[in-house]
Amino acid sequence: MKARWALLLAVCSFPLHAAEGMWTLDNLPKAAIAKQYGFKPDAAWIDKVMKSSARLAGGCSGSFVSKDGLVLTNHHCVNSCVQQLSTADKDYIKDGFLAKQREDEVRCPEIEVNRLEQISDVTTALGAATKGKSGEAYAKAQKAEKAKLEAACSGSDKDSTRCEVVELYHGGQYHLYRYHRFQDVRLAFAPELAAAFFGGDPDNFNFPRYDLDMSLLRVYENGAPAKLVNYFPLKPEGLQEGELSLVTGHPGSTQRQLTVAQLELLRDLALPQRLFLASEYRGLLHRYRQEGAEPARIAQSDLFSYENSIKARKGMLEALQDPEVFNFKRKQEAELRAYVAKNPKLKARYGGAWDAVAKAQQTYRNIYWPYRMVELGGGFFSSHFDIARSLVRGAEERAKPNAERLAEFGEARLPEVEQELFSTAPIYPDYEKLKLGFSLTKLREYLGPDHPVVQQVLGKESPEAVAARLVDGTQLSDVASRKALWQGGKAAVDASQDPFIQLVKAIDAPARALRKTYEDQVKAVEDQNAEQIAAARFAMKGASVDPDATFTLRLSYGEVKGWEEKGQWVAPFTTLAGAFERHTGFDPFALPESWFKVRAGLKLDQRFNFVTTNDIIGGNSGSPVINKDAQVVGLVFDGNIRSLGGAYWFDERVNRTVAVHAGAIVEALRQIYGAGNLADELTGK
Amino acid sequence: MKARWALLLAVCSFPLHAAEGMWTLDNLPKAAIAKQYGFKPDAAWIDKVMKSSARLAGGCSGSFVSKDGLVLTNHHCVNSCVQQLSTADKDYIKDGFLAKQREDEVRCPEIEVNRLEQISDVTTALGAATKGKSGEAYAKAQKAEKAKLEAACSGSDKDSTRCEVVELYHGGQYHLYRYHRFQDVRLAFAPELAAAFFGGDPDNFNFPRYDLDMSLLRVYENGAPAKLVNYFPLKPEGLQEGELSLVTGHPGSTQRQLTVAQLELLRDLALPQRLFLASEYRGLLHRYRQEGAEPARIAQSDLFSYENSIKARKGMLEALQDPEVFNFKRKQEAELRAYVAKNPKLKARYGGAWDAVAKAQQTYRNIYWPYRMVELGGGFFSSHFDIARSLVRGAEERAKPNAERLAEFGEARLPEVEQELFSTAPIYPDYEKLKLGFSLTKLREYLGPDHPVVQQVLGKESPEAVAARLVDGTQLSDVASRKALWQGGKAAVDASQDPFIQLVKAIDAPARALRKTYEDQVKAVEDQNAEQIAAARFAMKGASVDPDATFTLRLSYGEVKGWEEKGQWVAPFTTLAGAFERHTGFDPFALPESWFKVRAGLKLDQRFNFVTTNDIIGGNSGSPVINKDAQVVGLVFDGNIRSLGGAYWFDERVNRTVAVHAGAIVEALRQIYGAGNLADELTGK
Repeated sequence: MKARWALLLAVCSFPLHAAEGMWTLDNLPKAAIAKQYGFKPDAAWIDKVMKSSARLAGGCSGSFVSKDGLVLTNHHCVNSCVQQLSTADKDYIKDGFLAKQREDEVRCPEIEVNRLEQISDVTTALGAATKGKSGEAYAKAQKAEKAKLEAACSGSDKDSTRCEVVELYHGGQYHLYRYHRFQDVRLAFAPELAAAFFGGDPDNFNFPRYDLDMSLLRVYENGAPAKLVNYFPLKPEGLQEGELSLVTGHPGSTQRQLTVAQLELLRDLALPQRLFLASEYRGLLHRYRQEGAEPARIAQSDLFSYENSIKARKGMLEALQDPEVFNFKRKQEAELRAYVAKNPKLKARYGGAWDAVAKAQQTYRNIYWPYRMVELGGGFFSSHFDIARSLVRGAEERAKPNAERLAEFGEARLPEVEQELFSTAPIYPDYEKLKLGFSLTKLREYLGPDHPVVQQVLGKESPEAVAARLVDGTQLSDVASRKALWQGGKAAVDASQDPFIQLVKAIDAPARALRKTYEDQVKAVEDQNAEQIAAARFAMKGASVDPDATFTLRLSYGEVKGWEEKGQWVAPFTTLAGAFERHTGFDPFALPESWFKVRAGLKLDQRFNFVTTNDIIGGNSGSPVINKDAQVVGLVFDGNIRSLGGAYWFDERVNRTVAVHAGAIVEALRQIYGAGNLADELTGK
Repeated sequence: MKARWALLLAVCSFPLHAAEGMWTLDNLPKAAIAKQYGFKPDAAWIDKVMKSSARLAGGCSGSFVSKDGLVLTNHHCVNSCVQQLSTADKDYIKDGFLAKQREDEVRCPEIEVNRLEQISDVTTALGAATKGKSGEAYAKAQKAEKAKLEAACSGSDKDSTRCEVVELYHGGQYHLYRYHRFQDVRLAFAPELAAAFFGGDPDNFNFPRYDLDMSLLRVYENGAPAKLVNYFPLKPEGLQEGELSLVTGHPGSTQRQLTVAQLELLRDLALPQRLFLASEYRGLLHRYRQEGAEPARIAQSDLFSYENSIKARKGMLEALQDPEVFNFKRKQEAELRAYVAKNPKLKARYGGAWDAVAKAQQTYRNIYWPYRMVELGGGFFSSHFDIARSLVRGAEERAKPNAERLAEFGEARLPEVEQELFSTAPIYPDYEKLKLGFSLTKLREYLGPDHPVVQQVLGKESPEAVAARLVDGTQLSDVASRKALWQGGKAAVDASQDPFIQLVKAIDAPARALRKTYEDQVKAVEDQNAEQIAAARFAMKGASVDPDATFTLRLSYGEVKGWEEKGQWVAPFTTLAGAFERHTGFDPFALPESWFKVRAGLKLDQRFNFVTTNDIIGGNSGSPVINKDAQVVGLVFDGNIRSLGGAYWFDERVNRTVAVHAGAIVEALRQIYGAGNLADELTGK
């Protein structure tokens, strides 16, 4: 769960152009694109784009780039897989990974790739199910209807079909998305981290930039590379300044349609508090990594995630602290409320929505820390804990009718649970103790030493002692023992003496109670009233607004363009030569040996990274930049620092998407990495 | 510098009573005290209280408690001294310290104790010096006049006299404070940290509480205990609920009189950003301490300071995020501005002050990070750096006329500089590398890798490599080499090849430039306009308002009283028995062995800690709680969590001071620590 959100909020961010918008593929602003760039996407183009776009279920985007199932995405989207495949003896993060031939491709234990097949509007069905209900009844009815729709959609084919009901406009519309599911996903190529993330945290969210933040996966079916009809070929020539750039992908989450009360909660509570905790964790990991080569290797992926999300959240917080942004939000809301207030019919229907949402925020404030620490697991940073909770809850939930289960254990979602549960990714005991011991001290700090859950968990022991006892005593590192408990169901789990199973059971009642309060008194109120606010907005503006991002497929359009920063014009392209100039020899400014070996033969004036005005956000990481011929001309991997306010509003003047140039990808594969075969496959040679 | 601010913001905080106010001793609200508690302090009482109150120059309060120079203060006020006196073989933090006889008392290398002797109003002199000036000219004239007044005040007697011009009402009044200075301050007693800080960070700022947060110092003159005329004897019976409690001490800093624009800067920039950085540092030290007994010992004091100031600042931030607080502030400011606007004469004089301050905040925002990291040393956490800067700047500044020096090198202040510079406190190379390496990565992070100072400092090296090279290469750990450079002046410093001296010199021009911008364009504007706002406030309200805290002697009055928290009444007293009940055996809930050894003989119903309604804040740590007979009935060591908003406003309902009961001090000294002689000395037996 954590990794997912880290990635959603991850490297990639939210830039853009005069054309604000992350548009669903069934509602593209075709006229506007045509008017501005002389290109009008037709149904065939849209269908091809939809089916050539890939979704990495963990929280990234990608694209299918060959008929044999090759998937192009970022290095930072597969970083945790690369780490999971590494050992003390062979560190692919440091050295990079290349499968010389297809047989050498290695399965990533936790990566699932999805391809969108169909979108259906289920707003009416959801509306009928929740009509006249509120609070707990509303939440229950909505959950049941969603589970029913999802189960019917995936049918018996759930191993290769993934169905999800998606809320658009925070509940103004509901769509059912049907995906083709690939769980056998293998790593074909990843460069050294030093090349993928050159400049590291200091250069993250900045530009000019020099990152080969790419990787190649391959989806398999029945043990062989999947055969694809739809995919995007690469066009190494890329785009010129001012040319139309289209980005397809899965932006994770924007908050442009939240009420002012919700934004205040983010500004005053959620963002700063999460940053305090994440910053502390970052310091801890920073030191842990200095303790030796193995700690450095083991904690690399987590530290990257923390640093990345810290930088992103700081940018988001700064945007909300900007009076200009908040005044704009207040004005926007006041206008809509005034419009509603003027019309008696609208007023009767929607007039109370904003105050209801504000009241739910107060409830949320009151449960914020217990809910975060106990139910969302903030007090239990531990892979073993996550596994134990899946086992305990999975046993209990699977015994219930589908409609009544916790959403994540719905019939249609079990393949994902099983993939995580049976993952062969290594778990390191010392690192587990570090993480769990630390988070238990935070549990105590945030809830207070006298809170019943804290007393239950710590008793008269210290956090470190509890962590050591649990990690030393558990069997859950062993995949076979997890399988036995999963398959044994409730009886097996009840009989288990595993200390993590015992821990999860001991706190499950208060954890579920907190979740219930959140779902009934916060989430349900937000959803129900967001429906009303969305309806009011439609009444005022029509469907000219794109829905907030929801980690579903969107298309944004823009162009290659620099911007002005502190009075200086930032040019839109960098070159390979620039990377060598920025090299110092010290991490994170140390290009790998492999680059220096072939420097003389490299096309140094090859464009390397570039910026566009597309409207994207975290989750778009790995998105292809395509041209109007549906060819890949770039690979989105970041936004500039000014784009971080894109979570809340769109500022066409300074927000930019940052991408790897298609030509640099091909040049690096051929000249640096000896992967001509992959370059041929990408370019259709 | 850092330690000072950490302590200023430290454990102790800001509670209070119907009687808001940290009153200067020349302006006590005598009538109000008399009306409410039937006690009217006379001139003799006030003089005795002033001369029995102690100021620890590092940022704490205390009281003289015997004719032979004994000073009562908190353990956390001498924690760094106790650590400095400890070694790998003998850890006084863990074991406590007791000088069985006076000859065993050991000098604290960095503690200076002051006793206030005289207050003079110098508002007129300052006003005359700065009249008609603004910006740089204002700052320069003010600095020169202050230096002149201070030098004249301390005269040739600067080793035993300390003089400081203090701004009250943020510049509305200026007072010259003359102190007697004690630099030979020896440790007589400190309990084990486990007893002093029982409950640790989890219980910090909370109540009920069970802390023996006390220590005893003794001031020496000419090698013998100083003979004192004025001191407070202890009264072990303490106070009953509802009795008048008086607190005398040195509250560090409140912001109750700041403008809304200044509060916004604190809320949106200074507080959260410092919390992000401090949280990360906390995580780093948390891990470092887990690496072994020596790292744990070495980093204890710093980690304590960070945790303490983090908790305090979080409380302050939460207060500013509370709409009730900010609305109150806005209203207060709007009323004063309306009052000024109505009166043409006031308007002409003071009407522009608020906008001018707001404009200065914008300037401050722009230089915030460079100023913090480069001039305030945030990018250079290192004792060696601090020493090198004192040497480099000291050499340069002492060559100038007194009036033109940087304030901290004014003639009157040199004894303090020399005490720090020649301190025998140990410096640990590995720990220095950790701190410096980390802070250099923050320097790079906050200024960006392309900032000229970052380029200058790091060149093509990593932060860790630079830190290692500097620490390995320096001679400044050696006190004699510091003395030689200090006495050798500019010639010696210019000739020095010490890498820290070189570093300080390399960045001194930009650092000074940032300071100049801050002093001329932020501080001078704030001061000048605060004078006007204060004058406007006087015009509206008279002198019925106490000045914001400035680490100068104040008296607050209140009473022993519990409060209601989440619907529960919190009783004002705890007992020794309660500490044993809360004991778990695991740090920080592990009472020391010494307590268990004598448990049977202890008066377990002895009151231990208690709360009062006094108005205090960080810097009041170590303040005596006295009764109207000027006897010590308690020792302030904390405020409750609700008191943290006291930085900005006074909420009599929930803000409380937390103190150690005088009876518990005596009981512990006699029964647990075998220090009957000290107990006798304290109680005048």
